[in-house]
Amino acid sequence: MSDYQYPINDIVFSLLSVARIDRLSPYLDEPMDRDLLDAILGEAGKLAEQVIAPINSSGDKEGSRVEHGQVYEAKGFKEAFKAYSDGGWIGLSGDPEYGGQGLPSFIATAVNEGVQSANLAFSLCPLLSLGAIEAISLHANDALKTQYLPKMLSGEWAGTMNLTEPAAGSDLAAIACKAIPDGDAFRIKGQKIYITWGDHQMSNNIIHLVLARLPGAPEGVKGISLFIVPKFLLDANGEPAERNDVQVVSVEHKMGINASPTCVMSFGDNEGALGYLVGQQNEGIKAMFTMMNNARQGVGLQGLAISERAYQQALAYAKERKQGMKADRSGRAAIIEHPDVLRMLMMMKSQIDAMRSLVYVAAVENDLSHFASGDQKQQAVSRTALYTPIVKGWITEQAQEVTSLAIQVHGGMGFIEETGVAQHARDARILPIYEGTNGIQAIDLIGRKLHSDGGKEMLALLAEIETELAQWQAPDMVDYAEKVRVVLEEAKAATQSCLLAMEKDPVLGTGSAYPYMMLMGYLIGAWLQMRALHEANASKDLEQAQKESWQHSVLFYCDHLLPRVFSFAHEIKFGASTVDKLNKNAFNR
Amino acid sequence: MSDYQYPINDIVFSLLSVARIDRLSPYLDEPMDRDLLDAILGEAGKLAEQVIAPINSSGDKEGSRVEHGQVYEAKGFKEAFKAYSDGGWIGLSGDPEYGGQGLPSFIATAVNEGVQSANLAFSLCPLLSLGAIEAISLHANDALKTQYLPKMLSGEWAGTMNLTEPAAGSDLAAIACKAIPDGDAFRIKGQKIYITWGDHQMSNNIIHLVLARLPGAPEGVKGISLFIVPKFLLDANGEPAERNDVQVVSVEHKMGINASPTCVMSFGDNEGALGYLVGQQNEGIKAMFTMMNNARQGVGLQGLAISERAYQQALAYAKERKQGMKADRSGRAAIIEHPDVLRMLMMMKSQIDAMRSLVYVAAVENDLSHFASGDQKQQAVSRTALYTPIVKGWITEQAQEVTSLAIQVHGGMGFIEETGVAQHARDARILPIYEGTNGIQAIDLIGRKLHSDGGKEMLALLAEIETELAQWQAPDMVDYAEKVRVVLEEAKAATQSCLLAMEKDPVLGTGSAYPYMMLMGYLIGAWLQMRALHEANASKDLEQAQKESWQHSVLFYCDHLLPRVFSFAHEIKFGASTVDKLNKNAFNR
Repeated sequence: MSDYQYPINDIVFSLLSVARIDRLSPYLDEPMDRDLLDAILGEAGKLAEQVIAPINSSGDKEGSRVEHGQVYEAKGFKEAFKAYSDGGWIGLSGDPEYGGQGLPSFIATAVNEGVQSANLAFSLCPLLSLGAIEAISLHANDALKTQYLPKMLSGEWAGTMNLTEPAAGSDLAAIACKAIPDGDAFRIKGQKIYITWGDHQMSNNIIHLVLARLPGAPEGVKGISLFIVPKFLLDANGEPAERNDVQVVSVEHKMGINASPTCVMSFGDNEGALGYLVGQQNEGIKAMFTMMNNARQGVGLQGLAISERAYQQALAYAKERKQGMKADRSGRAAIIEHPDVLRMLMMMKSQIDAMRSLVYVAAVENDLSHFASGDQKQQAVSRTALYTPIVKGWITEQAQEVTSLAIQVHGGMGFIEETGVAQHARDARILPIYEGTNGIQAIDLIGRKLHSDGGKEMLALLAEIETELAQWQAPDMVDYAEKVRVVLEEAKAATQSCLLAMEKDPVLGTGSAYPYMMLMGYLIGAWLQMRALHEANASKDLEQAQKESWQHSVLFYCDHLLPRVFSFAHEIKFGASTVDKLNKNAFNR
Repeated sequence: MSDYQYPINDIVFSLLSVARIDRLSPYLDEPMDRDLLDAILGEAGKLAEQVIAPINSSGDKEGSRVEHGQVYEAKGFKEAFKAYSDGGWIGLSGDPEYGGQGLPSFIATAVNEGVQSANLAFSLCPLLSLGAIEAISLHANDALKTQYLPKMLSGEWAGTMNLTEPAAGSDLAAIACKAIPDGDAFRIKGQKIYITWGDHQMSNNIIHLVLARLPGAPEGVKGISLFIVPKFLLDANGEPAERNDVQVVSVEHKMGINASPTCVMSFGDNEGALGYLVGQQNEGIKAMFTMMNNARQGVGLQGLAISERAYQQALAYAKERKQGMKADRSGRAAIIEHPDVLRMLMMMKSQIDAMRSLVYVAAVENDLSHFASGDQKQQAVSRTALYTPIVKGWITEQAQEVTSLAIQVHGGMGFIEETGVAQHARDARILPIYEGTNGIQAIDLIGRKLHSDGGKEMLALLAEIETELAQWQAPDMVDYAEKVRVVLEEAKAATQSCLLAMEKDPVLGTGSAYPYMMLMGYLIGAWLQMRALHEANASKDLEQAQKESWQHSVLFYCDHLLPRVFSFAHEIKFGASTVDKLNKNAFNR
């Protein structure tokens, strides 16, 4: 099995040259330069490569187990979590008032890319903790913050998110879990499913954030409140003491991310689990939604990360494995010498380059939406909202293709679990599902993002792309800029079609949501790839070979991936009516 | 978990109306009519539904195990294999002289669709037996045929194919297994890997067909011979007696088809395994290639079969699972009522309809290539050769998408193994790999099929499509026929591009092989979908609802799947140069 190498050069290039983190400089005490990035990310890379990657395959095989109502994680995970916490990585972008380091969150994104590539199952525990930390930071009162944040930011305690119930998956309006007032606190009763890292032995306490309904709360999403429910209740000194009335019932047997325990959790089998209200009553969904951009972009990042890992393994194998003859018949060829294998590898690489550009562009926009003020803030908020479903949806779809290609490059070996490459595809398969299925992302894009402002923000983005394209007049770029411009026109037309369709019928209009999301993903990918090429060509830091590698990636993208837009545009233009007419009876044969 | 239902109506419609089995009537003693098809396939369907499907999920969980040098298959498999053999299904299209029923092989294809949908892992055992039976029937001498065929056709004995070695996968020229003459027989020595159902307890004997080299044989593929190597040597009465020197070393741990033991086999650890030459010395590869059309089309059929199974399960779930509100807000909606879910389900259904048409059209062509004579035979041989890589390559790629969509329709439930739908995607992942990777299929299409006859057969096919398109002038078809015609022009241009590229450089030219294979698949799919619609509209047997279901499927296909051709055509037209320029250094970053 090949080793993982944290691609620090590509990440730093993405941050500096494509995502342009200097846009954040006015808001930072200490602007991020190359040296600082290299120093921080170099350390993070080492942790990912040396501590977290080596337990990825063993964790997949071992999984986790429930014994006496406790979950025991796979071997080595506890030690890795400790190394991760001790390194201060959890609190990287946390509030300094509670022990965080206050760095912009794009740095955490860059660190997490490595952790997720190294071991997706492991990475979900700190990731869910960060989600819980964010919810508490943004919505809890000072007393709760003081009690919970410092130990969560240090990694001494972990956190979880408890949303889904058997009858309430994509549809959170159906949540039935109850919260009954009991003094200053509440008694929580109900079952939650699909709780990632719902229990484990890696931390001294687990802080569950739980959505539940107060007595008499309005029906639907407007009657849901958010609660802190710790596994161990805190004593007078704020230390974990008595067990709360929350139990893990079972752990799911999944297709992938096997080392990550996906728990069925039961709250309140006895007297009711003690919970503490976060934010206002009945505003739990709002609290969840403020975390949505981060969480959904985080899943897009996972798509990039697992793709990078799969690609590295396929590339190493293709250089090593010999089959068939060299083109000049001078001896046996490494399979990377065959044009179809080269095609597959570059298909992976150029998708990954585009994914990474989008991930960091969106992460920096998200930071701007927090740091900036006035108009700039408002623009960053709107742009982040627009990017988020594309980051989550488009990238995680690409991850299916890239991880599958990694298997294909391995031939028969790819299907044998010992090789380790099949795991990446199995792990990746959850990404289009959780944190809002990609269908939901697409509907979010076409509905809440596109339709709700009459297309204003999307048209602003398209105009920005057009302006930037016009700047690339260098001889080696101008032809490709023109190719992107042609596709941009398709995107404009598709945008107008979707706006009209949503105006006419906001339910039926969603039939074009998925192709629209994919179309925008490929277009944005091309735009950022071209920006990357422009920057690479002009760079004083990159060596000639690296510049050439960028040229291969970007031109390949424009010739082989961008044309998919023609297909999606056609679906939107001509296919909406064939979707509109569908109903259950269409399948009666 | 939903039950599998053999889609007999769709299969019979495909055979009669799309594949037009009446073309075979002149060569059959008893032409196949609807009643006969219904009778045979009705029985086959019951076996698949009631006996073979119920052990699919349990087989996946249990897998197989090696104990004391023997492989023990999952529970219920032995009984299912007996029921299958006792029903006479193995010998369905076998030579009547040796106990077969002599029916055309399209009937076996239709039976196998059900078996493969029911349980892909199980189906591989009779499938590999059929491959071995075919090799013996076509190439062995009468004595060997008399000894082996009757018990293989009855299912008393099973068969396997032993090609791959650790250093010889796609590249069979590298085969190193040895065959040393010993009287009238040979002593076989060497290791084979990836031997499907290489050992088991379901039959009294296992007849291995093994590729090996004689001493002094030419290097490469021209020095490989084919041998029968039985697990138990036959006594004077032709009954299994003494163990031959062949052992199973281990069973692979795979991503899917877990119930199918994939064995490492060792021949000749001691005195050498006794083997009997099949056909001429050094002509083993030729013998393998004569079976290639059947075997590769058989894998395409598996792609159809697993897609059908996954689709049925997704459809049932979508009708049952409630999330969100109905469009008129009158209550909770089954998820099939949401446009994006309808889109996913019809994406699956219309791909399956097109796959099935192609499978049976190619199967009937294959039968014609055996039954017909003179020019008609020659045409059928060429057409079968052209169809085969598209059946294998395009359909198994579609199967990845369809089985993945089936997971997606299930949301979080799809990722939980208990649901059973993830198994279909895991099982399906082998299909683009074995029996020649899809890259090899694409190269076969663009090289041995397209380039080697200067495009003659492909241009004949395109002309045939054009002629048939011109006939569809009915008001409800003419617009869509025009859409297919536009795509046909793209296919013609792509064909010329590929011919030129292969003429210029037959290695670099293969860089466009994959998009060309996919392009042709989508075009042929559209042509046959339109034919199906034409026939459905005119049918006296179909009910109005069934006709409407065909309309939905075909028009959806043309609006949502056919446009992918634009993307592949663009790759071929503009992208060949970006592939040509790639080399190892393109990845140096």
